[in-house]
Amino acid sequence: MTSKLDELSVNTIRMLSADAVQKANSGHPGMPMGAASMAYVLWTRFLKHNPGNPKWQDRDRFVLSAGHGSMLLYSLLHLTGYDLTIDDLKGFRQWGSRTAGHPEYGLTPGVEITTGPLGQGFASGVGMALAEQFLSARFNRPGLDIVNHFIYGIVSDGDLMEGVSHEAASLAGHLALGKLIYLYDDNQITIEGSTDIAFTEDRSQRFRAYNWHVQEVADGNDLEAIENAIHEARAETKRPSLIAVRTHIGFGSPNKQDKASAHGEPLGPDELVLTKEKLGWPVDRPFFVPDEVREHFATAVEKGIREEDAWKARFHSYAEQEPDMAAEWDRFMKDVLPAEWDSEIPVFPPDAKGMASRVASGKVLNAIAQKVHNLMGGSADLAPSNKTEIVGETDFQPGSYKGRNFRFGVREHGMGSILNGMALHGGIIPYGGTFLIFCDYMRPAIRLAALMGLKVIYVFTHDSIGLGEDGPTHQPVEQLASLRAIPNLTLLRPCDGNETAEAWKLALTLVGGPVALALTRQGLPTLDRTQYASASNVRKGAYILKDFGNRTPDLILISTGSEIHITLAAATVLSEKGKAVRVVSMPSWELFDKQTAKYKLQVLPPEIKARISIEAGSSMGWHRFVGEAGETISLDHFGASAPSSILFREFGFSAERIVERAMRLV
Amino acid sequence: MTSKLDELSVNTIRMLSADAVQKANSGHPGMPMGAASMAYVLWTRFLKHNPGNPKWQDRDRFVLSAGHGSMLLYSLLHLTGYDLTIDDLKGFRQWGSRTAGHPEYGLTPGVEITTGPLGQGFASGVGMALAEQFLSARFNRPGLDIVNHFIYGIVSDGDLMEGVSHEAASLAGHLALGKLIYLYDDNQITIEGSTDIAFTEDRSQRFRAYNWHVQEVADGNDLEAIENAIHEARAETKRPSLIAVRTHIGFGSPNKQDKASAHGEPLGPDELVLTKEKLGWPVDRPFFVPDEVREHFATAVEKGIREEDAWKARFHSYAEQEPDMAAEWDRFMKDVLPAEWDSEIPVFPPDAKGMASRVASGKVLNAIAQKVHNLMGGSADLAPSNKTEIVGETDFQPGSYKGRNFRFGVREHGMGSILNGMALHGGIIPYGGTFLIFCDYMRPAIRLAALMGLKVIYVFTHDSIGLGEDGPTHQPVEQLASLRAIPNLTLLRPCDGNETAEAWKLALTLVGGPVALALTRQGLPTLDRTQYASASNVRKGAYILKDFGNRTPDLILISTGSEIHITLAAATVLSEKGKAVRVVSMPSWELFDKQTAKYKLQVLPPEIKARISIEAGSSMGWHRFVGEAGETISLDHFGASAPSSILFREFGFSAERIVERAMRLV
Repeated sequence: MTSKLDELSVNTIRMLSADAVQKANSGHPGMPMGAASMAYVLWTRFLKHNPGNPKWQDRDRFVLSAGHGSMLLYSLLHLTGYDLTIDDLKGFRQWGSRTAGHPEYGLTPGVEITTGPLGQGFASGVGMALAEQFLSARFNRPGLDIVNHFIYGIVSDGDLMEGVSHEAASLAGHLALGKLIYLYDDNQITIEGSTDIAFTEDRSQRFRAYNWHVQEVADGNDLEAIENAIHEARAETKRPSLIAVRTHIGFGSPNKQDKASAHGEPLGPDELVLTKEKLGWPVDRPFFVPDEVREHFATAVEKGIREEDAWKARFHSYAEQEPDMAAEWDRFMKDVLPAEWDSEIPVFPPDAKGMASRVASGKVLNAIAQKVHNLMGGSADLAPSNKTEIVGETDFQPGSYKGRNFRFGVREHGMGSILNGMALHGGIIPYGGTFLIFCDYMRPAIRLAALMGLKVIYVFTHDSIGLGEDGPTHQPVEQLASLRAIPNLTLLRPCDGNETAEAWKLALTLVGGPVALALTRQGLPTLDRTQYASASNVRKGAYILKDFGNRTPDLILISTGSEIHITLAAATVLSEKGKAVRVVSMPSWELFDKQTAKYKLQVLPPEIKARISIEAGSSMGWHRFVGEAGETISLDHFGASAPSSILFREFGFSAERIVERAMRLV
Repeated sequence: MTSKLDELSVNTIRMLSADAVQKANSGHPGMPMGAASMAYVLWTRFLKHNPGNPKWQDRDRFVLSAGHGSMLLYSLLHLTGYDLTIDDLKGFRQWGSRTAGHPEYGLTPGVEITTGPLGQGFASGVGMALAEQFLSARFNRPGLDIVNHFIYGIVSDGDLMEGVSHEAASLAGHLALGKLIYLYDDNQITIEGSTDIAFTEDRSQRFRAYNWHVQEVADGNDLEAIENAIHEARAETKRPSLIAVRTHIGFGSPNKQDKASAHGEPLGPDELVLTKEKLGWPVDRPFFVPDEVREHFATAVEKGIREEDAWKARFHSYAEQEPDMAAEWDRFMKDVLPAEWDSEIPVFPPDAKGMASRVASGKVLNAIAQKVHNLMGGSADLAPSNKTEIVGETDFQPGSYKGRNFRFGVREHGMGSILNGMALHGGIIPYGGTFLIFCDYMRPAIRLAALMGLKVIYVFTHDSIGLGEDGPTHQPVEQLASLRAIPNLTLLRPCDGNETAEAWKLALTLVGGPVALALTRQGLPTLDRTQYASASNVRKGAYILKDFGNRTPDLILISTGSEIHITLAAATVLSEKGKAVRVVSMPSWELFDKQTAKYKLQVLPPEIKARISIEAGSSMGWHRFVGEAGETISLDHFGASAPSSILFREFGFSAERIVERAMRLV
């Protein structure tokens, strides 16, 4: 039964959205108008949240994967009493407003995730559900559930077409994530027209194949049917749920409903009037909210306080019964590392043979994971190569949700988005591994982690032609450059075991953005730090590893990662030839850029013009450091299939070549 | 019934593969050993090919999507008489050999596609099947089928987990591509172990949901069952086929069969001996091929000649009956443009209001498409925005395979890989559009296009913060830089309609790699070329658009795309202030890099140190052109949601700011 109040409420959502889009003269009215009913049912009858405290830890999470329908979310946030005023809605899509074109995490209270690039919200919701399962398995005690919430989402045709949603859906089904409930806004319209032109698969059957619980609601405005379906979905605890709701894009618009034209542009003033007339809405009162509707939605405020208070009482009892666990909960949720979290990190002794930096990474990861119990992750089916396994920990699997080792399968993109969801949920420091080359597969997710400022750690191994025989499809060339180009992402390419340890320390402590580690497949010597500057300088991004010769250098060699060692060999030769050579280790451009001008000038004095960068990757960007008179020894073409030592030699990464180039330069 | 000869033949494939991997001490023996039977049946009983002419136009295409099993393919190529000797096999994975770690298109005769990054082969095969359908619909005449071949592939667990395969599979089912037949190597093992740990979805049900014809073969060594299944798949003309064949990775290895350890490393000398003993193989003869096996496979040579001869006879009749079509066929297949192919390309008159470069692009595309009948493509559901539609052409849909407008759906990655398949098939010049930001979704496919040197055209619109209100999730920042970093990809960012026309001309004529066009959402003035240098200079990558002042410039402003216009406005002001200013339009770094040193020095004389680059994107790489004394006006952070004019102003892309920076510099 739909009451008059229900109808008014749903139409309020529709018309606030249409009005805001019209005022902005930009945006997507159709989705909010079509999906208003399902969102209304979810938000007023199910969603557990406290508008007065959007960060309450045990709230349900709501993901608007169809982020273009942002006005739907803003309307709901406004009406249910979040700190988002009607003036905020009027500022939709304007400079400086809190109501951006797509929902932005951190900008708007109550927005759980930045969405818009399709498929991302869908996949990140899976990460949130993983986090909920892990935390509840770890913390809950009989009769004292301090973690017990749902992950709800609204997903669209576009989300289901994107491959990343397939990857995440398959994994969510495998993992039996029963707390995940998605409403599918099945409006059968995309930008180019009817879904009949490109998307005719049987979506329900596909999701059943993934081990999802699938329901269909024939009428997207049948509130009771939607309510029943959500009840059923909540009752199903062993499978994620998809509720396909047949909706009508631009519902209520006499001339645009069910048309692609309702998707991405304002209805237009005339059509807006016609729509309001059709829905029985006052045509002359933009942003109109009937009083009874306002009162009705506003009950969320009181209800939220009551629910959080009940949870607080429960947590109080929990803290009395399990004080250590309660303290750990606080640390997890506040992202505070435990005392002596880094005390087990090994110091690698000098060793000419050394080890691959991926191997060092595995040791460091394990040393940290011993202490930091919410550091968790895995690999996209390359754990033995990426060295991402936490030894002695179980797998995260159905029936063993306490496990900290994830098995992402061959799903890099899904992994990236899931990591974002885990970080967004809170309580977890997630990491994910693959070969560096396959960062390309997960780039949209990496970008969103950077945009949202999430603490996510990427373990990218096999970081150059050092990968060897697998050949050019697997050898990174432009990947270092393309990661460095992403704002707010910190890339670290350590040169030995101890730089790797420092890189991990940074990854754990850096605030405000993700960290990518680029690690070798091949063995690297461990430098004797009595002969070279301390690896703790990694935090400065670049540092003088060694000045060969006791005078102002004739030449600066700047290098990273595995190429440091041939650079040092070259410096030794050059030194024997009477040249004063500075070797700068530059594991991170981003960190170096953050140093003081003084420090930067000290490492790279402008008067020393003779400079060579040495890195087995694209030269792009290196000219900033080597200057006009400098040179780059780089790889600006694809690799080849052969043993790595041959590739390094053939492609010019040898001490001899560096010496030759240097001698010509000075 | 498996004959003794069959068994010997299958074991020959297995042992050649295992021997080569052992000799290389690197590679993947397990897949070829497990999939040898199905590959044998396909290659000896079905595959239509002519080993003496790997480029015969009507051959069946074979895609080894599980590219790590490259030795399977090399063994088959060798045995069936391609130009690949036993010594080539012995050189597996070595420098300079034709048997690279993963199959490489262009390196090895008979390799149809570079594979290895999982999911790509699967998705590109769909593109090949599209091409076959299009060409047969266009060219075949009753009784004269000059195009009639199958696209076969072997796909793996990893392929099916990757999102890109989901995108392509959904589209293939929608498009009813009956000529596409994939054998799924269902060995239930991935690198991390059993597929049970991450991949338990019902694959068959999923593919049925996509409208695929799905069969299951319980025993991967039951040659008759495999043969029957392929027969059935060929008989099904309205659906693509998946044949799930239960195989055993490392089949025959007593201690490694069915284990992840068989996947990615040699069996080891001892296990290799044990395996040979178990399979009744001589243990002391590496690369052994029994004579009767060699004879048996070698029948492919004669058979291939006969089949191609029959086709040639048919084509001869066709050419007599349809001489114009036969000539067109030749042009299509040889990638020759028709006479006057560019005669309808508009010259855009000077216009201060002008038009968005995406709009100009749409006009130019249509002008070319009128003449070039194999230029075809579409968009990932953004055709109205990307202006990619060929007006007056029908859609490529079941029942209308002559259509040149593709509807890729919201599937950028799938689109990218499908475009590769279309180009690889031959006969088509494919293009695909999306917003520039979403090139991130299709990056692995773009990279493979570049690696394979394919002629694929990307139409990337909304190429900066000029996109406006949709905000940071949709605004490219690092995308120009990250595309420029890909070797062998040519990026063009034209500044007005006429540069856009030139960019398209280049895209059609450039040989050896893909071209990406970066185009604006927002309107751009059309420059008066009587006042500025000709747009035909686009082919040089960068050119002197105008020297303001009749003396050696004090300053060089280098810009691209939409920022050219504010740069010109700034130059005018600077000129009025008495400065001599050169404005360089630099639509393509890659093309400029290919020019003579003399030309480059002429455009950017080293003695003019005062230089500023102006581009609404990452500064990465620009220091190469502006030098140490120069500056960049760029965007090294994420965008924001607001009208584009406000964003340009707020983020410092204004004539005033350029003038201010310039005045400080000179």
